[in-house]
Amino acid sequence: MGKQFIIGPELPNMPWQDRPAGCNDVIWRYERNPVIPRDLIPSSNSIFNSAVVPFENGFAGVFRCDTKSRQMEVHKGLSEDGINWNIDPKRIEFICEDDNIGKFNYAYDPRVCKIEDKYYVTWCNGYHGYPTIGVAYTYDFNEFYQMENAFLPFNRNGVLFPRKIHGKYAMLSRPSDNGHTPFGDIFYSESPDMIHWGHHRHVMSPNKPWESTKIGAGPIPIETTEGWLLFYHGVLTSCNGFVYSFGAALLDIDEPWKVLYRGSNYLLSPQRLYECVGDVPNVTFPTAALCDAPTGRIAIYYGAADTVTCLAFAQVEEIIDFIKSN
Amino acid sequence: MGKQFIIGPELPNMPWQDRPAGCNDVIWRYERNPVIPRDLIPSSNSIFNSAVVPFENGFAGVFRCDTKSRQMEVHKGLSEDGINWNIDPKRIEFICEDDNIGKFNYAYDPRVCKIEDKYYVTWCNGYHGYPTIGVAYTYDFNEFYQMENAFLPFNRNGVLFPRKIHGKYAMLSRPSDNGHTPFGDIFYSESPDMIHWGHHRHVMSPNKPWESTKIGAGPIPIETTEGWLLFYHGVLTSCNGFVYSFGAALLDIDEPWKVLYRGSNYLLSPQRLYECVGDVPNVTFPTAALCDAPTGRIAIYYGAADTVTCLAFAQVEEIIDFIKSN
Amino acid sequence: MGKQFIIGPELPNMPWQDRPAGCNDVIWRYERNPVIPRDLIPSSNSIFNSAVVPFENGFAGVFRCDTKSRQMEVHKGLSEDGINWNIDPKRIEFICEDDNIGKFNYAYDPRVCKIEDKYYVTWCNGYHGYPTIGVAYTYDFNEFYQMENAFLPFNRNGVLFPRKIHGKYAMLSRPSDNGHTPFGDIFYSESPDMIHWGHHRHVMSPNKPWESTKIGAGPIPIETTEGWLLFYHGVLTSCNGFVYSFGAALLDIDEPWKVLYRGSNYLLSPQRLYECVGDVPNVTFPTAALCDAPTGRIAIYYGAADTVTCLAFAQVEEIIDFIKSN
Amino acid sequence: MGKQFIIGPELPNMPWQDRPAGCNDVIWRYERNPVIPRDLIPSSNSIFNSAVVPFENGFAGVFRCDTKSRQMEVHKGLSEDGINWNIDPKRIEFICEDDNIGKFNYAYDPRVCKIEDKYYVTWCNGYHGYPTIGVAYTYDFNEFYQMENAFLPFNRNGVLFPRKIHGKYAMLSRPSDNGHTPFGDIFYSESPDMIHWGHHRHVMSPNKPWESTKIGAGPIPIETTEGWLLFYHGVLTSCNGFVYSFGAALLDIDEPWKVLYRGSNYLLSPQRLYECVGDVPNVTFPTAALCDAPTGRIAIYYGAADTVTCLAFAQVEEIIDFIKSN
Amino acid sequence: MGKQFIIGPELPNMPWQDRPAGCNDVIWRYERNPVIPRDLIPSSNSIFNSAVVPFENGFAGVFRCDTKSRQMEVHKGLSEDGINWNIDPKRIEFICEDDNIGKFNYAYDPRVCKIEDKYYVTWCNGYHGYPTIGVAYTYDFNEFYQMENAFLPFNRNGVLFPRKIHGKYAMLSRPSDNGHTPFGDIFYSESPDMIHWGHHRHVMSPNKPWESTKIGAGPIPIETTEGWLLFYHGVLTSCNGFVYSFGAALLDIDEPWKVLYRGSNYLLSPQRLYECVGDVPNVTFPTAALCDAPTGRIAIYYGAADTVTCLAFAQVEEIIDFIKSN
Amino acid sequence: MGKQFIIGPELPNMPWQDRPAGCNDVIWRYERNPVIPRDLIPSSNSIFNSAVVPFENGFAGVFRCDTKSRQMEVHKGLSEDGINWNIDPKRIEFICEDDNIGKFNYAYDPRVCKIEDKYYVTWCNGYHGYPTIGVAYTYDFNEFYQMENAFLPFNRNGVLFPRKIHGKYAMLSRPSDNGHTPFGDIFYSESPDMIHWGHHRHVMSPNKPWESTKIGAGPIPIETTEGWLLFYHGVLTSCNGFVYSFGAALLDIDEPWKVLYRGSNYLLSPQRLYECVGDVPNVTFPTAALCDAPTGRIAIYYGAADTVTCLAFAQVEEIIDFIKSN
Repeated sequence: MGKQFIIGPELPNMPWQDRPAGCNDVIWRYERNPVIPRDLIPSSNSIFNSAVVPFENGFAGVFRCDTKSRQMEVHKGLSEDGINWNIDPKRIEFICEDDNIGKFNYAYDPRVCKIEDKYYVTWCNGYHGYPTIGVAYTYDFNEFYQMENAFLPFNRNGVLFPRKIHGKYAMLSRPSDNGHTPFGDIFYSESPDMIHWGHHRHVMSPNKPWESTKIGAGPIPIETTEGWLLFYHGVLTSCNGFVYSFGAALLDIDEPWKVLYRGSNYLLSPQRLYECVGDVPNVTFPTAALCDAPTGRIAIYYGAADTVTCLAFAQVEEIIDFIKSN
Repeated sequence: MGKQFIIGPELPNMPWQDRPAGCNDVIWRYERNPVIPRDLIPSSNSIFNSAVVPFENGFAGVFRCDTKSRQMEVHKGLSEDGINWNIDPKRIEFICEDDNIGKFNYAYDPRVCKIEDKYYVTWCNGYHGYPTIGVAYTYDFNEFYQMENAFLPFNRNGVLFPRKIHGKYAMLSRPSDNGHTPFGDIFYSESPDMIHWGHHRHVMSPNKPWESTKIGAGPIPIETTEGWLLFYHGVLTSCNGFVYSFGAALLDIDEPWKVLYRGSNYLLSPQRLYECVGDVPNVTFPTAALCDAPTGRIAIYYGAADTVTCLAFAQVEEIIDFIKSN
Repeated sequence: MGKQFIIGPELPNMPWQDRPAGCNDVIWRYERNPVIPRDLIPSSNSIFNSAVVPFENGFAGVFRCDTKSRQMEVHKGLSEDGINWNIDPKRIEFICEDDNIGKFNYAYDPRVCKIEDKYYVTWCNGYHGYPTIGVAYTYDFNEFYQMENAFLPFNRNGVLFPRKIHGKYAMLSRPSDNGHTPFGDIFYSESPDMIHWGHHRHVMSPNKPWESTKIGAGPIPIETTEGWLLFYHGVLTSCNGFVYSFGAALLDIDEPWKVLYRGSNYLLSPQRLYECVGDVPNVTFPTAALCDAPTGRIAIYYGAADTVTCLAFAQVEEIIDFIKSN
Repeated sequence: MGKQFIIGPELPNMPWQDRPAGCNDVIWRYERNPVIPRDLIPSSNSIFNSAVVPFENGFAGVFRCDTKSRQMEVHKGLSEDGINWNIDPKRIEFICEDDNIGKFNYAYDPRVCKIEDKYYVTWCNGYHGYPTIGVAYTYDFNEFYQMENAFLPFNRNGVLFPRKIHGKYAMLSRPSDNGHTPFGDIFYSESPDMIHWGHHRHVMSPNKPWESTKIGAGPIPIETTEGWLLFYHGVLTSCNGFVYSFGAALLDIDEPWKVLYRGSNYLLSPQRLYECVGDVPNVTFPTAALCDAPTGRIAIYYGAADTVTCLAFAQVEEIIDFIKSN
Repeated sequence: MGKQFIIGPELPNMPWQDRPAGCNDVIWRYERNPVIPRDLIPSSNSIFNSAVVPFENGFAGVFRCDTKSRQMEVHKGLSEDGINWNIDPKRIEFICEDDNIGKFNYAYDPRVCKIEDKYYVTWCNGYHGYPTIGVAYTYDFNEFYQMENAFLPFNRNGVLFPRKIHGKYAMLSRPSDNGHTPFGDIFYSESPDMIHWGHHRHVMSPNKPWESTKIGAGPIPIETTEGWLLFYHGVLTSCNGFVYSFGAALLDIDEPWKVLYRGSNYLLSPQRLYECVGDVPNVTFPTAALCDAPTGRIAIYYGAADTVTCLAFAQVEEIIDFIKSN
Repeated sequence: MGKQFIIGPELPNMPWQDRPAGCNDVIWRYERNPVIPRDLIPSSNSIFNSAVVPFENGFAGVFRCDTKSRQMEVHKGLSEDGINWNIDPKRIEFICEDDNIGKFNYAYDPRVCKIEDKYYVTWCNGYHGYPTIGVAYTYDFNEFYQMENAFLPFNRNGVLFPRKIHGKYAMLSRPSDNGHTPFGDIFYSESPDMIHWGHHRHVMSPNKPWESTKIGAGPIPIETTEGWLLFYHGVLTSCNGFVYSFGAALLDIDEPWKVLYRGSNYLLSPQRLYECVGDVPNVTFPTAALCDAPTGRIAIYYGAADTVTCLAFAQVEEIIDFIKSN
């Protein structure tokens, strides 16, 4: 075994499949995709863009479940193997002291990040009907405590770093507008208390054609010896709408708003029928990554066609090589 | 057998399939969908959004058949079983005394409504190149007499009630604009003579996310003991365009512009390949419903992907329950 | 004196000024324009697009008065000479039996038309928040009785004919959309009872550059020996927005949807400071015309810059000549 | 003298003119408007939207001066009387330790707020080419120290409160998008250190027609016995673009995100030639207010037509009465 | 064998399949479509809109190969049978003396036209970031010499005629704008030297609904006894974006800007899964045609869903009949 | 007298006024602007964007005269002093052999350029309803011979150089789109015969804020010892539309697509009432310049508010200094 790139614990029971014979891609799909069908719970129109973390002896998750009224909600779930999930048919009712913040509008595209003893959930939260970054934490994936929204509207794709940086909490996000935003860069912000945020820094803008409309952080960044490994989605606008692919970059460990390397190609784009056909055609949207540090294995959960949840696999050294050589 | 909800005749020979085992949905699809393929007649690019009624011992219909120049036309057809259709390869040439009205621009999305001894056809009619509600009647599905357009442009989805209300003809419609209208509510209008229309009332606006862009009446409303049962389509705008689903509501029998109950979820949304892939992806658009009053069986004809015609089935008591409990 | 073109009564006390020396234009402005300043009543932000008719020994009018919250209202007013006005500082509270229709949203751009013993007011009426044609009548300019809206939304510039045509009431209008509509033609409709409207006919579309975006009927059509004399506004879209000018056409007496002649030039366009500068720059919008049949004198009231009310004068034979020779 | 409403110091040497005879408006204009012409300094295309505060024995200000390349800059200036200004022909070069923040893109629409011993300047700051709220402070109007931007892009109209609220700095702002934003509400945020901001609360949305497109805070709120007196601009979109007027509201002293009263009318709208004609027609945009607490006099500086700086005057008790009675 | 319509050489080894039994369409698809998969070369995201010509004993081609960064490039390739292709994994590096022209931005949608001894390539070329018509020639499909761009931006779909007309080179093109252009007509231009172009003539505008948004020339026109046979694509805009079909017309041999006949229907529209699902759903885009003059066989290469390359077949006499009878 | 910068003849009788006392601007306006009122000829709505050249003992010109139908036409005119003009009330009827080219759609924004013995007129010409560059020549300002349009649509602001460059005619132009184009760069093209154009080179893009939307060449470039002196207009988009100012640049004498120097500020922007108020507010648009080489005097004709024609004056050495020092 070669060098260990990922700084973190082992996770030997993570979902995994080896690269299929004949496949030369850096990332390969789970062969029985989608892992979560659109109708796993009775009320759901679709289940996608889902946040998964190791929890106790298995896995826990927060899932975007759109109802059959197309209301966007987040639900919790548990799984022994990361593939077969038991999702709560009721949405998470966040516990919140201040009704001004806690009143439910809508909630979507969650991420989950363990920092010290808490699992923080961030999501796109409807505040006064406008999208911004909701923040909550849980210890047990049963009760979730909602805190202040991180930012003013209009913001989406708020993604925490898994540890403090120079004593401050750190978050990536994408300021946006009030609709199907046709622009978007990734920014970095810090907070002493997870309530007040500042020290905002620009991280990166759309660059290559596959991401030329907008980009947004995907899973919680993975700490590696080469920098923070960030998977991120990028959007291209064709004459028939948005196409969501995803790629990767390495950010400076100490000043994560500095991009060290950035892959010029996408890693995965919508090419399978379940990625190209669904409520929103041509979407692959990564929201969580599980890693086994010693082996460098990475499993990426991604939403497909805004309809179902899928899995893809990669080896960290190949990802880093891909990023650096492009 | 329980209570009879539907006020109307029996129709024992209607097309029907029982709910498949394991299906819990309120509405279920015909297992050999689509019932009418896009190329049933030589000239057709697509056949969809089709209006079907019981006629003599079988069924008659008026069909939207787009030609291979993508000209939108309506054609007549006959069927013994409502499934196997004999569609006239030539478009209906409406008989009209006044050329100002009868000159053909385009015709699409027909509905057929029997009132007393006439079968009225309403459709989106190109008048001076602008969409409005065309009106015609036939006794025999052979000769069709075109009357005055019901409204000024711009209007679509004109749907008659199957009997006069307080002595007046009644129609639902959706005022719109000159293109792919991004808004739309359902209105109610009355006429003493099927020529002059007035007493316009607002019925309902988009409400839930699945219908947040616009809504429009679908099949001829079904008279029930609980009110007029209206299936209607709703449109959600994703970053890749419009998604057409359909739901249902109950309108007051005497003042049909008053909504008694309205389901918050869609009943059916585009999820099958023939609904998601075609000339316009992600469209399910209901235009006719056949009912057998004693058994409460309902067969709904709907266009899929603006390409083919499909069927779905439901029981009236379950539909009413769905509407009232949501 | 030559031929009498206008079919109607004399009106010797109408406001009038002779054409200034050196002026060769078909229409000339009142030298002390604007006749009604923006702040004639304490609450008004602007007073424009105003409907004036002979009444008793003087004149009565219905005025668009936008408040200082920019709420659009219509107010009544009286004048002895058509120039000095006493406008009611309170908006007209229409008397209406049906709250569904009579609930106030907004009201603007009124016209007043005497038919037999009633003065009918039509205006752009907010119904359920959408623009359509409101209709009311008064005998005394004190109490106004609101009837059914003439059409479904979205409509503006509803203008009645001053007598029935073949036994039916007749109205011109411009179907539009929900915003600053970028298109618009004039249509003709008939009604047996001023409630139900039908027999819709297309009258005319934008044609020349000065009216290339949209057109709309202005004052009540004037009956002449040469046809109905219609003044109408036309809109050109420059890179800085809409420019409203006005011109004229002659419609067939018996089938007024048939255009006999149409001037190719505008008669008046925004060129004076009070027409070019104001709440909406570059607007001249005619809404009423007073005629003295024997002398052929015409006084046209028009809104300027959506801010003030102005007057212009013309001779009918010159107007007809202008229309026919262009 | 009646009750003292304004909580603050006296300012007897403020610029002032009594209400002209015959004027009944709540606010009246300075008779020699504009007070600052567009070309007061050689390089300027326009000088407007200017922030003025009492300083030493006279007044100091930070001014938006667009250059003749239409580059947007802020300049400092001094005046003895608040009317005759000596403006530095060079833009303020903010002293900033971190180039990532301090690099100049553009700067516009400044406000100045004295809190304790510092004069804070907030403005719309180009960060990475995107608008957000720049923050700096000065003791002497000579050297200006730039701090962290308050928020992520996209934001404009950041306005500080003149004292801490419950121990935190407080700011109003309007999240927006990347262009001529067609929407906008006022929000409230808090900070323990003027660097990290949180506890974001919605304050108010557009409401009346005169402000129906967007609203934004104007001058630093004035503390009164009735609440924080906030002047704010509102934008109406006509068919020829935006019209900027301004009005006023009272916010709760302790929870300033709660609106106690809000005037329904504008206080001042563009009606004079210098407000209606200029680089951007039809703009009145208030950015500073000087008060003499004992007399209740208020002088409001506002930009006109995005070209020049103007003054208007009011009495606090009349303003409060206006707000409460509308 | 009947009359020979095509004026040109025989090409007996062209790819060919007879019309399948039961098929009545004028054009029929290759049964193993797509002929070139999206990933034929390692770097490609997609291979489509490809230009093929007979070359030596087999076939040569220039292919649009979008990379996995979605960069648009053109690649050369060779094939013995026109179906199995050996495509160069590196993009064509055009040899160009003038860097102002030769600097690579992007290149897409190539056509190849043999005139005398040279194979000319035309393509949509990024010049200064804007689309215009790039021109190059090769003798051997190894070295390609880039000439001046044919036109000023913004232009696409430049298609040469295969011989001079009255001593001048001749080209069809579609002037467009800077984005997903919503309009477009075909024009004709001439050049004495393949550098300077003039004598611009309008050829045809969108006409029927299937092409109502824009049209553009497809393969090199085929000289026939009935005129130049032009296959061209047409675009219809649905509520979900553009739909690309293709049809055909006959142009005058001597004055090719004169349209002799034009089919009113499309010949082929996106109906198969590989045409309806991919990077851009619902696209069929013809770019090359191979003909065997004696037999009248035509093989058309077309891109499907902007993802893969497909083949369809036709007989020239049937195509001509289709054009003339519609 | 200092160095002579302008390469060209003397023109002592050109219109001229010295810089007013107290004026420090590089360019100053004629004190009796506008020189040509909107109604100089009976049929005109406006006369602006006018091309003037020395001719015989006085001056000749081609004028944009919009009619009162707002049809855009060009008219010829003569003047002894360049200020008092005799404009032909009839539009120029170009003599053209080929009806396909010569059929009149519209004509606007002319320039006149003397090359050798001919006066060439270029203008924005409606060809098939689309804007492109029309070209004609005259010897006597009586008969005008129309040649081929220079380019394919969509193009505007075609401006010839006053002599051949390396044996070719040379033209600047701005490719555009089909409406109020929101983008635009200046390009350079060459022609051997004034019919076929090629060797297209990019010259310059919008740069500074005052020109950030688009730029276009103004008068015929003036040959100087420092390069070609080009006045050009630039457009800024405010929330109320376009603002047209003008500035200047120096182009390389031999390779005029290379910009040597470019002023960063505008020279003149709309600030006078006749520039800010009119058919299109806030427009100053230069189209012709007269020079007296020995004295370096330059008189610039510019359109104001798309309504009237104005004059401004400058000294060449000051203009060159302005360009080089910015």
